[in-house]
Amino acid sequence: MEGVDYLAHERKTAQFDVEAMKVVWAGSKHELDLSDRMARLVASDPVFRKDNRTMLDRKELFKNTLKKAAHAWKRMHELRLTEEEAGKMRFFIDEPAYVDLHWGMFVPAIKGQGTEEQQKKWLPLAYKMQIIGCYAQTELGHGSNVQGLETTATFDPNTDEFIIHSPTLTSSKWWPGGLGKVSTHAVVYARLITDGKDYGIHGFIVQLRSLDDHSPLPGITVGDIGNKFGSGAYNSMDNGVLRFDHVRIPRDQLLMRLSQVTREGKYVQSDVPRQLLYGTMVYVRQTIVADASRALSRATCIATRYSAVRRQFGAQDDGPETAVLDYKTQQNRLFPLIASAYAFRFVGEWLKSLYTDVTQRLQANDFSTLAEAHACTAGLKSLTTSVTADGIEECRKLCGGHGYLSSSGLPELFAVYIPACTYEGDNVVLLLQVARFLMKTVSQLTTGKKPVGTTAYMGNTEHLMQCRCAVKTADDWLNPYAIQEAFEARAVRMAVNCAQNVSKAPSQEEGFFNLSADLVEAAVAHCQLIVVTKFIEKVQRDNVGGGVKDQLQVLCNIYALNLLHKHLGDFLVTGTITPKQGALVSDQLRSLYSKLRPNAVALVDAFNYTDHYLGSVLGRYDGNVYPALYEQAWKDPLNESDVPEGYAEYLRPVLKQQVRLARL
Amino acid sequence: MEGVDYLAHERKTAQFDVEAMKVVWAGSKHELDLSDRMARLVASDPVFRKDNRTMLDRKELFKNTLKKAAHAWKRMHELRLTEEEAGKMRFFIDEPAYVDLHWGMFVPAIKGQGTEEQQKKWLPLAYKMQIIGCYAQTELGHGSNVQGLETTATFDPNTDEFIIHSPTLTSSKWWPGGLGKVSTHAVVYARLITDGKDYGIHGFIVQLRSLDDHSPLPGITVGDIGNKFGSGAYNSMDNGVLRFDHVRIPRDQLLMRLSQVTREGKYVQSDVPRQLLYGTMVYVRQTIVADASRALSRATCIATRYSAVRRQFGAQDDGPETAVLDYKTQQNRLFPLIASAYAFRFVGEWLKSLYTDVTQRLQANDFSTLAEAHACTAGLKSLTTSVTADGIEECRKLCGGHGYLSSSGLPELFAVYIPACTYEGDNVVLLLQVARFLMKTVSQLTTGKKPVGTTAYMGNTEHLMQCRCAVKTADDWLNPYAIQEAFEARAVRMAVNCAQNVSKAPSQEEGFFNLSADLVEAAVAHCQLIVVTKFIEKVQRDNVGGGVKDQLQVLCNIYALNLLHKHLGDFLVTGTITPKQGALVSDQLRSLYSKLRPNAVALVDAFNYTDHYLGSVLGRYDGNVYPALYEQAWKDPLNESDVPEGYAEYLRPVLKQQVRLARL
Repeated sequence: MEGVDYLAHERKTAQFDVEAMKVVWAGSKHELDLSDRMARLVASDPVFRKDNRTMLDRKELFKNTLKKAAHAWKRMHELRLTEEEAGKMRFFIDEPAYVDLHWGMFVPAIKGQGTEEQQKKWLPLAYKMQIIGCYAQTELGHGSNVQGLETTATFDPNTDEFIIHSPTLTSSKWWPGGLGKVSTHAVVYARLITDGKDYGIHGFIVQLRSLDDHSPLPGITVGDIGNKFGSGAYNSMDNGVLRFDHVRIPRDQLLMRLSQVTREGKYVQSDVPRQLLYGTMVYVRQTIVADASRALSRATCIATRYSAVRRQFGAQDDGPETAVLDYKTQQNRLFPLIASAYAFRFVGEWLKSLYTDVTQRLQANDFSTLAEAHACTAGLKSLTTSVTADGIEECRKLCGGHGYLSSSGLPELFAVYIPACTYEGDNVVLLLQVARFLMKTVSQLTTGKKPVGTTAYMGNTEHLMQCRCAVKTADDWLNPYAIQEAFEARAVRMAVNCAQNVSKAPSQEEGFFNLSADLVEAAVAHCQLIVVTKFIEKVQRDNVGGGVKDQLQVLCNIYALNLLHKHLGDFLVTGTITPKQGALVSDQLRSLYSKLRPNAVALVDAFNYTDHYLGSVLGRYDGNVYPALYEQAWKDPLNESDVPEGYAEYLRPVLKQQVRLARL
Repeated sequence: MEGVDYLAHERKTAQFDVEAMKVVWAGSKHELDLSDRMARLVASDPVFRKDNRTMLDRKELFKNTLKKAAHAWKRMHELRLTEEEAGKMRFFIDEPAYVDLHWGMFVPAIKGQGTEEQQKKWLPLAYKMQIIGCYAQTELGHGSNVQGLETTATFDPNTDEFIIHSPTLTSSKWWPGGLGKVSTHAVVYARLITDGKDYGIHGFIVQLRSLDDHSPLPGITVGDIGNKFGSGAYNSMDNGVLRFDHVRIPRDQLLMRLSQVTREGKYVQSDVPRQLLYGTMVYVRQTIVADASRALSRATCIATRYSAVRRQFGAQDDGPETAVLDYKTQQNRLFPLIASAYAFRFVGEWLKSLYTDVTQRLQANDFSTLAEAHACTAGLKSLTTSVTADGIEECRKLCGGHGYLSSSGLPELFAVYIPACTYEGDNVVLLLQVARFLMKTVSQLTTGKKPVGTTAYMGNTEHLMQCRCAVKTADDWLNPYAIQEAFEARAVRMAVNCAQNVSKAPSQEEGFFNLSADLVEAAVAHCQLIVVTKFIEKVQRDNVGGGVKDQLQVLCNIYALNLLHKHLGDFLVTGTITPKQGALVSDQLRSLYSKLRPNAVALVDAFNYTDHYLGSVLGRYDGNVYPALYEQAWKDPLNESDVPEGYAEYLRPVLKQQVRLARL
């Protein structure tokens, strides 16, 4: 098998213009060029190497991450990078670090919740990194339920200060990234108490460490919460624990855009609409959907290339064995994931435009679409991150035994990705929010209130409750209208069924509580419909040449029909399609996989990932997998000596039958 | 929340005798006492501590594993443990080590494939551990396809030796556990070549390292293959790489029970039936099913206890929040996994009796049930390991953010478990073997050949193809006959559909290849039926008092009905049940979850796991989770100093705006 370049052959069979697809994937020629430039810049800089990451112990790993962050900061200045370029550079450095939270949570929190004055004071310090900040919300005993946080901020009118305090062990701040060892400041969420009354959770800017010598300030106990999933991965981040023992901060460090406390200790709400905060949530979740498509595409790129190189069974007349990518069981698992990566990329692109729309409306005091936009982003965050987490692990399994090696890159990708299912809203909790919105939408159908945005199809409920799917042949399943109607009918029927069952309960709340498992399924159906719809619209709207449109069409059909097959029970139990039509889906899927097969490697090449970013011996662009695996093995610290440390103490006595005599 | 013992309350609500259930779970009073004794022995010995494992670097971790193995060997002698006790002790030490392969693969290979003479020579050395062995089969380029191995063993009649050689890079032995740093010997699989002819793959005993100083022998290149998934986990094992440069071994180190090479170089097959090798496979896979139930029960034990402690949302009038175990979405994900752990335990127990039966038949030269037993164990290995791997990760998600901490024990449990989906037969490859057997069984139905064992139901195909499910109310789904018939009808219909579609293809092979995705689904349906059937039989057969039978009944129903709901598409598309009947399944499941709820903690207590074995701060028996999490955090090496290493070089220059001046 050595000396044969399997991937060159794969690239020749592609039926479309890969360069044109790269632009489609990136979003624009500008985006492609920018990413390409920044990815190469990072890849060519030895400070940013990643291949030794899983071999470092915690302290070495962490120190190395500090080094990378400082080096990146220096390079950004030397090269006078724009904000856009600097963001991309951080992205391609591809290592969780305090800078993520500083730029992604601390700065936005001050921007979103600080007054103009506060912004003027704090933002220049943060922009220059004269202070480094994190976002201290969750506590040891409190995650999803923000209203349950226990940390208190009690106003003391005598000194014009807030007293920040951790009254219990469970009120210890727990998880904030960058908190443990790096951050000098934090936006701390605490119950605002003044004049004996608890006004609920508010954000405060609190200094944690001395700017002289970095030691924790009096009253502050701060540290790292310990090792996390995997080697390398998120262990480069100092997720932290933080306790306050009556720490005093000036009154003007309450973030005061939405509410203030006067010198006398009076709580005053400003007239800034609280809905503005939802805008931020839409923004953050939109970026998480974009991250999902990147992580999933990365995993599928590795699995696809390696599946084209790896051969097993099926050798005839001493010829080579069959590439595992040719096996239908491999295609059946891998191709829907490639299609999902594309689907998430396009729905993420659309979410970006949704955010722009929401922002413009907010500025015009139009809150009419906000609830729908909020439910939509919550649902898509949940759907895309769950599928991506499972998809990465599936890609690892698709790489067989070698996928279990750290050098495959997949274990670390999985370990570093899965927190996305939990942070910024637990995925199940988010789906229940979506379901609540759907139930409300259903209940308002009779009142004449027209559903908007991604729920607009529910205005068509009467038709969708009784329509019959017209599919008669496998090829009829290529019709986008048939697909979309089936997904709409399934979603609406599941939602209406749930609403009817909820209404039978003694109370709305009790019904919702008892039927929550069904409600989650209805929410998933709704979210899948959104992704399918946006993919169909993307294919219909874009007119890219070079055979690209045909490929997108195939991917879109695979995405939708694989979901249909996977959730066949939903479609059948709601009478949306017949068993016969369900069986035709499998036939059409087989045909679609055959169409995708010659393009598989080119479709993952279109992600335009460098070998550095992929970080996988199995996913190498040149396909030269085996020599690289072999070479990488010898770099393990265990191979520093032929005879392992511990031989004399713990192996020789066993082999030489001296165990009972030896003092072990 | 501090000071309240949530689990004591949970234990009071149990409606059955936990001690009686412990016996059921263990299999017998003897097994329970044995496990209990050995688990406590290990837990009370400080050498066997595990809580620091994820913090050690590779070399420290490996050395520590050698220490544990030597200490265990010493204790086994000191305490004069029986073979059974020693095996249990190794199990509770709970750390992958070379001893697993020595006892689990090297010794059995010599027993199964060696002649009496060879056994007499090698086994005493192995039993006393004067030599340590491993099982060197897979190669860098060859895993599932054993027939494709490239290593050669060429007979040289001049010297009466075999020359073992690695002709290519891809022929490097790769993955064998214990090979890299420890094993002095290996059973090596290689192509036997004599007189210019290749006789295929045979096993050879090859010495790898000097018994004097442990250095690799001339011609042998051996080392570790590098870091693997997770921290701790399988990195305690020296999975190895091995290359031979014309290494000579005496002729009598070919394992000669099945075939020999004479002094003249003539290849001679013995009259020992080759089917005997299948017996070993049945044995090994049976132990893997038993391991699956242990790993899954361990994960569910952690998730259940923590879900009873953890509270979130739903606080009323300043009271405590709702335990997450009370949420239907949590029950809906967790309770089927508890039920699966029990189901796998009982099907594993049954597999053990199947192995005894197969062994007895083999000794009587009766091979009539072997193919069925082989397909059955292959399928159950695949089903139980896949569900367990996914189930552990689901349990981690059910623990929310804290499940991501290494101290939860779940990341390492996942990392250490997932290879079971790949070793001893890739799970998808195994399902295809099952499918092949099912297709053969279907094709023989018309010939009058009666299907045996777990395929006996297929003798009833005519009825099962047209029977109608009689369920009219949700409670009708509690009828074991209704459940079993539905699973039988679904399995047989999927198999027959596949057979019909395969027969339409130009050739059997082509049909099988193209429809392999459907065939895998049919195989899964068959395997699920086996587990459901054995669970129903267990409940009906056992007459344990103390309310135990009722609990088993609830678990059995949850196991079956959750599968029915999850695979509703299968049942509907084959017309096995109606959409209305499918909807009733969800209603019954809700009611079953309510029945299980008060018993949840007691049902996982019945596994009788020590806190040492669980290895989880979240799964502690006393439920005192938060102080333990807090305490554990401070043990991380990063917390050795308040100001992290690297501050002066990489943080201070950033904060002090000296980046552009500093040389980083």
